[in-house]
Amino acid sequence: MSDLRAEAEALDGKDELAAKREEFVLYETVYLDGNSLGALPANVPGRLAEVMTHEWGELRIRSWSESGWWTAPERIGDRIAPLVGAAPGQIVVGDSTSVNVFKALVAAVRIARDPGNPSGGRDEIVVDATTFPTDGYIAESAARLTGCRLIPVAPGDVPGVLGDRTAAVLLNHADYRTGRLHDLPGLTAAVHAAGAPVVWDLCHTAGALPVGLDEHGVDLAVGCTYKYLNGGPGSPAYLYVREALQPRFDSPLPGWNSHAEPFGMRAEFEAADGALRGRVGTPDILSMLALEASLDAWDGVSIDAVRAKSLALTDFFLRCVGAYVPTGRVESLTPAAHAERGSQVALRCEGAGDVMRRLIEQGVVGDFRAPDVLRFGFTPLYVSFGDAERAARILARTLS
Amino acid sequence: MSDLRAEAEALDGKDELAAKREEFVLYETVYLDGNSLGALPANVPGRLAEVMTHEWGELRIRSWSESGWWTAPERIGDRIAPLVGAAPGQIVVGDSTSVNVFKALVAAVRIARDPGNPSGGRDEIVVDATTFPTDGYIAESAARLTGCRLIPVAPGDVPGVLGDRTAAVLLNHADYRTGRLHDLPGLTAAVHAAGAPVVWDLCHTAGALPVGLDEHGVDLAVGCTYKYLNGGPGSPAYLYVREALQPRFDSPLPGWNSHAEPFGMRAEFEAADGALRGRVGTPDILSMLALEASLDAWDGVSIDAVRAKSLALTDFFLRCVGAYVPTGRVESLTPAAHAERGSQVALRCEGAGDVMRRLIEQGVVGDFRAPDVLRFGFTPLYVSFGDAERAARILARTLS
Repeated sequence: MSDLRAEAEALDGKDELAAKREEFVLYETVYLDGNSLGALPANVPGRLAEVMTHEWGELRIRSWSESGWWTAPERIGDRIAPLVGAAPGQIVVGDSTSVNVFKALVAAVRIARDPGNPSGGRDEIVVDATTFPTDGYIAESAARLTGCRLIPVAPGDVPGVLGDRTAAVLLNHADYRTGRLHDLPGLTAAVHAAGAPVVWDLCHTAGALPVGLDEHGVDLAVGCTYKYLNGGPGSPAYLYVREALQPRFDSPLPGWNSHAEPFGMRAEFEAADGALRGRVGTPDILSMLALEASLDAWDGVSIDAVRAKSLALTDFFLRCVGAYVPTGRVESLTPAAHAERGSQVALRCEGAGDVMRRLIEQGVVGDFRAPDVLRFGFTPLYVSFGDAERAARILARTLS
Repeated sequence: MSDLRAEAEALDGKDELAAKREEFVLYETVYLDGNSLGALPANVPGRLAEVMTHEWGELRIRSWSESGWWTAPERIGDRIAPLVGAAPGQIVVGDSTSVNVFKALVAAVRIARDPGNPSGGRDEIVVDATTFPTDGYIAESAARLTGCRLIPVAPGDVPGVLGDRTAAVLLNHADYRTGRLHDLPGLTAAVHAAGAPVVWDLCHTAGALPVGLDEHGVDLAVGCTYKYLNGGPGSPAYLYVREALQPRFDSPLPGWNSHAEPFGMRAEFEAADGALRGRVGTPDILSMLALEASLDAWDGVSIDAVRAKSLALTDFFLRCVGAYVPTGRVESLTPAAHAERGSQVALRCEGAGDVMRRLIEQGVVGDFRAPDVLRFGFTPLYVSFGDAERAARILARTLS
């Protein structure tokens, strides 16, 4: 056994999250694509069978009240809250990430232009130019509908373009391609100094590291639940609205679920209090309750322990890659500094598409991002140090 | 046995859809709330178990291509298409009805204002004043974001308010409260004569009667799938965009799933061809594939046969109510004329809330709509004439 294999075994032996692995269905693969679709939590199929046969099949419409369907968006939001550093009552689950970006960004512009805000003339939406594309497309639509101009800039350059005309800023906590972690506290403070609200996209960080939404004064945030939160394919996204801003959250999608009295069937819209304003239409119960069951895996888990293991895993994987892979065949795009690293490693590699296909054939599942990037996501709840060593070893064999 | 009971038995004996009942889980209740939440199709739990354990649990991300997850929105749209009289390639499934109303209405305004359209200055959105509230709230938001004024009028009064300033019209095919069916062909023609596009909400008719979207030249339509289509609680809604209008469909929610090259990860948005433009974010796979399985119940079913049985059921129920219920205790709000009737019967009744509670205790499940309406929905795939007679008999007993 190589030294690194022995080291992996020792690290797994003292891993306080090791037992969590048993709560997921993993088969024989090394699954390093939890940053795209989290693995299946073992309790989900049983729970959803009960939802279908008992709650839908037997109780039917009674389940809207008796099985807690109606309140699922805010109840599940409160379960996600501690994972992103939010007190209860600020997160609702529902709709896709794209739709939530739209709600958050239009609402942010309206907050910036609130009559109570002395700075008028705010007509610029600043967006991360390296963003996952959907955020950029939606930002462009939000800009068009609110009479704003879109200013795409690299996250590091955001402070330089902020000013009296800034209506809102949309940023990603981690770059989906490189895995680089952006400075959420610093950028939030810079946007606030310019008198504008900021929207953070947490898709690539929630469940992988502490976010600290309340602590850092974030205004609005969105995220998906099918990556590090393991909610299932296309599971509903979530929207965070800071408590102090909720009375001014003016949604561009005011559906009957965000009404103060949804069953009053009133012709005039009157927004509900609190985070419920972020709801829109009838919640998607099967997907939503699968997500709720998947969150059981977080019981007793501290997000700080998750972050510590995540950094140890990516450090160890990079060491194994350095030791095994012939020099010059791959180049890490992921920052070495912990403060700048999310929970994935992105390696630039010639012929990356073909290399990833061959890795997958050998049971190492990551993904390929055009034109030349191998992405490996490390989900601390179910990825072991042994997995990291094996992935690097098979990668080296594939490249030699 | 009363004459009406014997008649119910005879009608059930010659019902060509009677065998369909076996494909649903019904227990002992008379379930007349399929216009709120359709009953559970018996094949859904098994299919979804396979999706969870095999497609998600074992294949994971490979299922986006290998299990057809990625193309589910348009594939399932094509299965709904024949039920609403649409040729393939015009319907995508996803998001809630409210979100689809928003897409359709903003896109309709943009079509009306298309540079190729000689009539400029269109700044009025006409909306059914008796609409299910969410459509009205969303219409108000669409009006605000596109610089339009909202004109709420009763559907019968729509032709009188149309003109050169009409940007778009949003109508319900059936009134959710009274069950009244509106004149889709006539109103569509009237809106077209004014040079504007029309959006129809089919929530209360799709799966209950022929809609004829293509035949009547409807521009855009939306609908839910959890009523007469039995897709499950909060199952994804759908959006129809007439083929000829697709090149001009300019969505206010241009997510990565509506991009011409979604995996190109391009910073610039370029809309996909066809109905795919109506997609937004990552599709909600568990709910979507439950819906797909639920549509198996329509195999071999003609929507004309469904309509014939629906009218026979509501006729028979009204006859039974007339025969059993003491005069003056209830008043039907549902039009007697077949051309004006959807697939539900709404009875105005003093103390309706309490009456419905007692009916449900006795195994007759309808619902209550404030302030004084008992609603009974008739789903031809699983409601029998015996159910209709029993419901009327128990209603009479409850009221006497």
